[in-house]
Amino acid sequence: MHFNQPLRLRSGAELPAYTLVYETYGSLNARRSNAVLVCHALNASHHVAGTHAGKPHSEGWWDNLVGPGKPLDTNRFFVIGINNLGSCFGSTGPMHINPATGRVWGADFPVVTVEDWVDAQARLVERLGITQLAAVIGGSLGGMQALAWSIRYPQRLRHCIAVASAPNLSAQNIAFNEVARRAITTDPDFHGGHFYDHGAVPRRGLRVARMIGHITYLSDDSMEAKFGRELRSTALAYDTQSVDFQIESYLRYQGDKFSEYFDANTYLLITRALDYFDPARDHGGDLSRAFAVARDLAFTVISFTTDWRFSPARSREIVKALVDNHIRVDYAEIDAPHGHDAFLLEDARYHALLRARFARLARTLDSEG
Amino acid sequence: MHFNQPLRLRSGAELPAYTLVYETYGSLNARRSNAVLVCHALNASHHVAGTHAGKPHSEGWWDNLVGPGKPLDTNRFFVIGINNLGSCFGSTGPMHINPATGRVWGADFPVVTVEDWVDAQARLVERLGITQLAAVIGGSLGGMQALAWSIRYPQRLRHCIAVASAPNLSAQNIAFNEVARRAITTDPDFHGGHFYDHGAVPRRGLRVARMIGHITYLSDDSMEAKFGRELRSTALAYDTQSVDFQIESYLRYQGDKFSEYFDANTYLLITRALDYFDPARDHGGDLSRAFAVARDLAFTVISFTTDWRFSPARSREIVKALVDNHIRVDYAEIDAPHGHDAFLLEDARYHALLRARFARLARTLDSEG
Repeated sequence: MHFNQPLRLRSGAELPAYTLVYETYGSLNARRSNAVLVCHALNASHHVAGTHAGKPHSEGWWDNLVGPGKPLDTNRFFVIGINNLGSCFGSTGPMHINPATGRVWGADFPVVTVEDWVDAQARLVERLGITQLAAVIGGSLGGMQALAWSIRYPQRLRHCIAVASAPNLSAQNIAFNEVARRAITTDPDFHGGHFYDHGAVPRRGLRVARMIGHITYLSDDSMEAKFGRELRSTALAYDTQSVDFQIESYLRYQGDKFSEYFDANTYLLITRALDYFDPARDHGGDLSRAFAVARDLAFTVISFTTDWRFSPARSREIVKALVDNHIRVDYAEIDAPHGHDAFLLEDARYHALLRARFARLARTLDSEG
Repeated sequence: MHFNQPLRLRSGAELPAYTLVYETYGSLNARRSNAVLVCHALNASHHVAGTHAGKPHSEGWWDNLVGPGKPLDTNRFFVIGINNLGSCFGSTGPMHINPATGRVWGADFPVVTVEDWVDAQARLVERLGITQLAAVIGGSLGGMQALAWSIRYPQRLRHCIAVASAPNLSAQNIAFNEVARRAITTDPDFHGGHFYDHGAVPRRGLRVARMIGHITYLSDDSMEAKFGRELRSTALAYDTQSVDFQIESYLRYQGDKFSEYFDANTYLLITRALDYFDPARDHGGDLSRAFAVARDLAFTVISFTTDWRFSPARSREIVKALVDNHIRVDYAEIDAPHGHDAFLLEDARYHALLRARFARLARTLDSEG
C-alpha cells in the first residue's frame, strides 16, 4: 500500500512518501470489528502466517499461533501483518531510493521509532476501513508496538496484548545492541552505511551481531539442555579457530544464515528503535501516567520465567502501571524453559491462554451482532 | 625465569623452551612454607600487587587484596604472581619468536590449557625451592587454575581457594567466547593470526570482543544502577551510529582501551583454555572422582549472588564434588551487586572472609615453627 501523504517522524524528519507491504488472513466481517493487527520484532515481517505457494520453508513467523483453528483463529478474525518502515522485507527502507537524491537511502534513511511505526500502521488500518481493531498483539519489540498503540491510539483498539516485552530497554539490553551495531559499523564492508554503492555487504558484522543476539534469545538452561559441552568430534581439536563444540557450530550457522538475508542498515535502525522506546519518558519517567489515556482498553501481558532479555520483572512494571490506572489487565508468567524465544514457540499453556483470550473476544464480537 | 626443559602440552605438542615472567611480594620464611600462588584470569598478569615506581595507575590487579596488612598479608606470606604461557605480558606467547622457524609464533603458538599453565607454574614454584604452597588462590579462570593445582599436584599445596569460578564453561559461556573469537578472526586485520607480519592489529575485533566480555562481567542490576538509560546529551540524536546512552560510551571506551594493549592471539588462546577446562571429563564426567586425589587439602569456594557468568550454582557443583569426597570446604555465597567483577572488588564481607582464612593459615604456619 502506497502513501503519498508525508509521515512526520518523532525525530522531526519527514518521510515524503512510503510503501508498506502487508498480508491479511481471514475475512473482515460486515461491521469491520474483527481485525487483529500483529506487530513484528527485529527480523520478522508482514508474513505472519501461512506459506507462499510453491516455496518450502516459507511458513509465517507466527504460523503456530495464527491460522484457521489456531489460537488466533483466522476463521473468526481478520489478521493483518505489516512490514515496518526501515525493515528489509518490502516496505520502504534503507535499500530503496531516496526520492530527494535519486540514490539508495543507505545510512541516510531516517531513524524511525516504535511510535513512527505505529503511526504508519494506523494509516494503513484506516485505509482498510477499520476504525477500531479488535486487538493489537506483538511479542518483544512487537509488544512495544502494541503498547504504543494503546497510548497513541487508545480509541482505535479494544485489546492490547504484549508478550515477552518491556516498557523500555535496560542498560544491559542497550549494551548488547550497541556491541552488535559496532560489529556492523566497524566492518570495512559497511562503508559508512553506503555499502550498496560499493557492491559490498558487511557480512562479518552481521554474523557477529546475530550471534550476540541469538545468545540473548535463548535461556542459559535451554542452551545447556540443547548443546551443553557436546563436541562435534570425539576429541578436542586443540585449535583456537576450529569448531570444537556444537554450540559454536550452531551459532556460526545462525550468523551465516542471517547475514545472507538481513540488511545491515535495517539492523541498526531496528535496534535503535528498541533503544529509544520509552513511553514513560514523555511523562517525566512515570509509566503509569503514560497509560492514563488507555483506561477503556483491556490488556493481556505475558512473560516467560527464563526470559533474561525481557524478564518477567519488566512485564510486571507494565502491569503495575496499568493497575495504577485501574485498567483491566490479565498477567501470566509462563514457566517455560526457552528464554526470550519462548514467545515464538508453541508452549501449551501460553497458547491455551491466548486461545481463550481470543475466543472470549470473538464471543464479545458475536454478541454485538 | 627461563626454562630449557621442554613442556609437554595436553594437546600432545611440546614447547621446547619458554620464559615465565613473575613477581613476588613479601619474604619466603625459613621453612619455605608461607608461599601463596595467585593465578590470573583473562586480561591480568603476574603484576598482582603494588605499583611500578614512577608509573601512575600501575597498581597490581589484585592490589586491594594483596599487600602489607591486607587480607592476603605480605608481611606474613610470600606471594607469587606468574604470567601464564600464551599471555601478552612478558611470558612466552604468540608475539614471541618461534625458535623452530625464526618467525613470530602468531596463530601457530600451541594451544595451552589450564593444566599446561599449572604444570609450568609448578616448575617455577619448584625452582624457587618451594615444595608445598601454603595456598593457591584465583578468581574466575584463576580459580580454575587453583582447582587444577588441587587435582594435579595435591601434595604441593595445602589450601585451594577458588573465587567466582566454575568446574567448566556452560554452553552460554562458550557461546560468548565464540562470538568474541569470531569478531577477532573475521577482522580483515587479523590475517589468519599473522597480523604482526603485516604491521596490523585487529583492533575492531578486539574492541567488539572486549565489549561482549565486559557485559558478562557486570550484573544487569549494577549496569542499571550505574548507567540505566542515562543520556550523554539532553536529547536523543536520532542517529544509528551516534553515542546516545552513557552505557554505549562506557563500552566503547572499554573496547578502545583494551584494543590498545591486548594481543588478539592471546585472547583466542585464553578463551580456548577456558572452553577446554573440564576436570570431570577425564573421569567420565564425574567431578567428584576428579577431586578424589585432593582429600588432604582444605578448600575455600566463594561465589557472588549476581554473577551470571559463573553463577553460585556452578560453585555449588564444586562444593558438592568436594563434600562427596569428605574434603574440608568452606563455601560462601556473597550477596554482592557487582556480578562477576565482584571478585576483583573490595567487598567488605568477601575480604573479611579471606582475611580470616589467611590469618588462620598464618597461625597454623606459626604454630609449626
